[in-house]
Amino acid sequence: MSKRIDFQTDPSKYRHWKVEYEGPVARLIMDVDEKGGLFDGYELKLNSYDLSVDIELADVIQRMRFEHPEVGAVVMQSGKDRVFCAGANIRMLGGATHAHKVNFCKFTNETRNTYEAAGAESGQSYICAVRGSCAGGGYELALACDHIILTDDSSSAVALPEVPLLAVLPGTGGLTRVTDKRKVRRDLADVFCAMEEGVRGKKAKDWRLVDEVVPNSKFDEAVTERAKEFAERNAAGKPDNGIALTPLDRTFGEDSVTYSTVELAIERDKGVATITLSGPDGDPPASTEELVGEGASNWMLRLARELDDAILHLRLNELEVGVLVFKSQGDPQKVADFEAFMLASRDFWLAREILLYWKRVLKRVDVTSRSLVALVENGSCFAGFLAELLFAVDRSYMMDGEFEGDNRPVATITLTEGNFGPYPMANDLTRLQTRFLGEPERVDVAKARIGEALEAEDADELGLVTFAYDDIDWEDEIRIFLEERASFSPDAMTGMEANLRFAGPETMETRIFGRLTAWQNWIFQRPNAVGEKGALQRYGTGLRGEYDMKRV
Amino acid sequence: MSKRIDFQTDPSKYRHWKVEYEGPVARLIMDVDEKGGLFDGYELKLNSYDLSVDIELADVIQRMRFEHPEVGAVVMQSGKDRVFCAGANIRMLGGATHAHKVNFCKFTNETRNTYEAAGAESGQSYICAVRGSCAGGGYELALACDHIILTDDSSSAVALPEVPLLAVLPGTGGLTRVTDKRKVRRDLADVFCAMEEGVRGKKAKDWRLVDEVVPNSKFDEAVTERAKEFAERNAAGKPDNGIALTPLDRTFGEDSVTYSTVELAIERDKGVATITLSGPDGDPPASTEELVGEGASNWMLRLARELDDAILHLRLNELEVGVLVFKSQGDPQKVADFEAFMLASRDFWLAREILLYWKRVLKRVDVTSRSLVALVENGSCFAGFLAELLFAVDRSYMMDGEFEGDNRPVATITLTEGNFGPYPMANDLTRLQTRFLGEPERVDVAKARIGEALEAEDADELGLVTFAYDDIDWEDEIRIFLEERASFSPDAMTGMEANLRFAGPETMETRIFGRLTAWQNWIFQRPNAVGEKGALQRYGTGLRGEYDMKRV
Repeated sequence: MSKRIDFQTDPSKYRHWKVEYEGPVARLIMDVDEKGGLFDGYELKLNSYDLSVDIELADVIQRMRFEHPEVGAVVMQSGKDRVFCAGANIRMLGGATHAHKVNFCKFTNETRNTYEAAGAESGQSYICAVRGSCAGGGYELALACDHIILTDDSSSAVALPEVPLLAVLPGTGGLTRVTDKRKVRRDLADVFCAMEEGVRGKKAKDWRLVDEVVPNSKFDEAVTERAKEFAERNAAGKPDNGIALTPLDRTFGEDSVTYSTVELAIERDKGVATITLSGPDGDPPASTEELVGEGASNWMLRLARELDDAILHLRLNELEVGVLVFKSQGDPQKVADFEAFMLASRDFWLAREILLYWKRVLKRVDVTSRSLVALVENGSCFAGFLAELLFAVDRSYMMDGEFEGDNRPVATITLTEGNFGPYPMANDLTRLQTRFLGEPERVDVAKARIGEALEAEDADELGLVTFAYDDIDWEDEIRIFLEERASFSPDAMTGMEANLRFAGPETMETRIFGRLTAWQNWIFQRPNAVGEKGALQRYGTGLRGEYDMKRV
Repeated sequence: MSKRIDFQTDPSKYRHWKVEYEGPVARLIMDVDEKGGLFDGYELKLNSYDLSVDIELADVIQRMRFEHPEVGAVVMQSGKDRVFCAGANIRMLGGATHAHKVNFCKFTNETRNTYEAAGAESGQSYICAVRGSCAGGGYELALACDHIILTDDSSSAVALPEVPLLAVLPGTGGLTRVTDKRKVRRDLADVFCAMEEGVRGKKAKDWRLVDEVVPNSKFDEAVTERAKEFAERNAAGKPDNGIALTPLDRTFGEDSVTYSTVELAIERDKGVATITLSGPDGDPPASTEELVGEGASNWMLRLARELDDAILHLRLNELEVGVLVFKSQGDPQKVADFEAFMLASRDFWLAREILLYWKRVLKRVDVTSRSLVALVENGSCFAGFLAELLFAVDRSYMMDGEFEGDNRPVATITLTEGNFGPYPMANDLTRLQTRFLGEPERVDVAKARIGEALEAEDADELGLVTFAYDDIDWEDEIRIFLEERASFSPDAMTGMEANLRFAGPETMETRIFGRLTAWQNWIFQRPNAVGEKGALQRYGTGLRGEYDMKRV
């Protein structure tokens, strides 16, 4: 599994999904190409999926928002005859490394969260039309939709057979959505999750597993009807056309990836990757018409797409990079101006979508299991949404005062309205609220300083950075920190960061990433699942897993 | 590690703790006997602990409530010169099985939660007087106290060095209490948890790691002062004397443990243990004076102590028992009468303590990682607090109607006031609220039926049981379920149950058991921690752990 996994695609390249647009309703048809898997050694039978299928899904739901904002309802359905989706491909899981399994689950979770939020955020509701078997990850696809319609025949059922069949958990939010979104009674959830065959018909509705059950003869009609209803409910203020998400400007080097506004530099011997973000080279658009005219070349949109891609690239392709260092260079005032334009225009669909996308990118950073650090250097432009990165990282260092031979503007941090609302974390708090959970009054103290270019002393006093160092100490301190971090066990880091990053309230999302994921990671290590005689390895051989029956 | 671990002890047998009572203030002195460990192969140096130390601690805080209700403040301090507590013993952890490590952490967590709640529930506040090094599990002991006083000298520090030193997490709530109880700023928490040496003096206070820092010369005085203050605040309504928690009436057989009101029968070949609870043989006490007179022989208190002991015995000593079956036999009306007396007398300290203890025992059941099932048979007495077990288990089966050759009274369930408040789960909801999260109106529907002896049809309709079967199906259905459950991977069961049991809101407690525990379990499996070259194995050899640096 050493080939580079690429998260960039477009509809002309899809092998697994088809999309049909009919005015405000889109049909998203899962029709997986058995031969189109990411790796050798398995076939994607029965609409089962691997990461290649999910990369296309993530792409299509992203394009739905930017390229097809006229859509108000998306029907997710199968292109196969007798199966909706059989879930994640078991042979792929059986053959994948632990790291790949975990990152695969994380990305699929992010994708599910994205379309689950599309209804409330962007007026694009997802309706799942289930005909045929809908099992495991297939049912998890459905669970993230706003509405599940199940056809009432003898072979159509929803199921989470992972536990009895594979000795692992449903890994893409299934358990959490069953208990917390659909609020299935816990003993019924226990019965449901312990049966291979799943639940059909009226019982599926009675147990709250689906929203409606429709006779086969009326199924298509009901789905069309429901799609229309959702689309009408979402119709207000929809634009007629979107913008094109043109291919990224991106060049891979041996130790680098160069984008138009993001530079990724990898030092593999040190286990460190540095991500440098460039501020805008021009002014923000003067009007929403100009914003549409800029399309995918808008600086803030470009930066979001490029950073998103860089993070995903590091997650899947650079496993030994344990520390991500965030830097920026540019004019902080211009960054603030760009964001101010978007915030002032947030009632306009495209500005809103760009802000929402930044929310998602920042969340992607939050749940990235690498040590995250920000360096606020001279010449940097951590303002507003870019300053959010300072509160997303595990710790931050800031240059204090003049540095010899460095004639860049002295390091500053600029808070904006953006730091107090539009990019909430998965826990539904802002990053500053999470940071100051013990001293909530500090959020207001910081708010009073919006717009100021805060130098190190002020930033430190306001609690916005972890450490501020002058010319004498800076280099040594950063070096020592990076060396020390690189010497720690990466597993302990992952566990520690997962626990320290999300203080405060929990949501379905934090539970999926924090609790469900941790249990799944644990099980993904256990011989009962992944050992030679484990259920994942034996799947399809006709033999059941052999288990060590000790409970822990 | 095959000798039976016994959770019963009393002060005459303590090797690790001393208690001194001075009116409303108790001194709880940790003075671990190096040679007093549970297993061979390690010495409990520097006040480090293993399960034997925690069993005594759990005993003393339980006795504090029942035997010394006059106490309003407990000072936790060290009996050693230069160390408060070095935390869990590393050699013990290095040598322990995965199951023992996990169960050790679970029990220590339960013990920390118990004294953490004692202030609010029973007016017994815990004050931690830290002199000397207070590291890892030592600081976790402190974190669960209501107030931490640190002496200000060059050697006294609080620390969580697990991550840098041992490649594991602080396993007893440390990370969660740092973020959620003490609300330490997350970047400072990152710095704190990544340093071996910990934080001393004023900085420890500034970072919110301790409540006060006092010069060495004034330390004893400050501790005494603070203890007095807490004791005075808690003084109202304290009784002069408690009751004696006399030794349990308990007999071990080859496949059984027989208590006065609990019978534990183990079928190792089936992986099943049956816990049968007996209803009261007499009437509840007529007055609180009579209650005190009964002391530890009170049926409801005996039942709590015996069930608690049985659960702990199964957890640590019967690892291959995957399914716990709860049954009861007795007069449900008498059970309800006993509980009614306690609820009516809850302003009286001993009734309150017995009810609080039942809350804790039920929580112990909730977080027991075995499949839990209840069988509501003819002649059973699932009323009120015993009916809570029906809502604690993963699923329940109820006999429906007459059974041939069975002349016991037909199976019923009796709801009481007790099912609607006094025994909340860790998520702060009642078990019925958690059960009916999707249909909250059902809680009220059930409440309207308080006091009725509900037979199977009613119980089923009210959603109180999972399945009701008549004479024809009962035996087969139970047998099939038990066989099926025993065939599943115990790891998948543990993960599934941990996710399904706690729907709804999260609390510090659910996060400790749900999220922190899962990450720790994962790390406890990883070669970087427990492999031959892992940090836990190499600790004390002078070699650092060698890590596979891949992030997952």
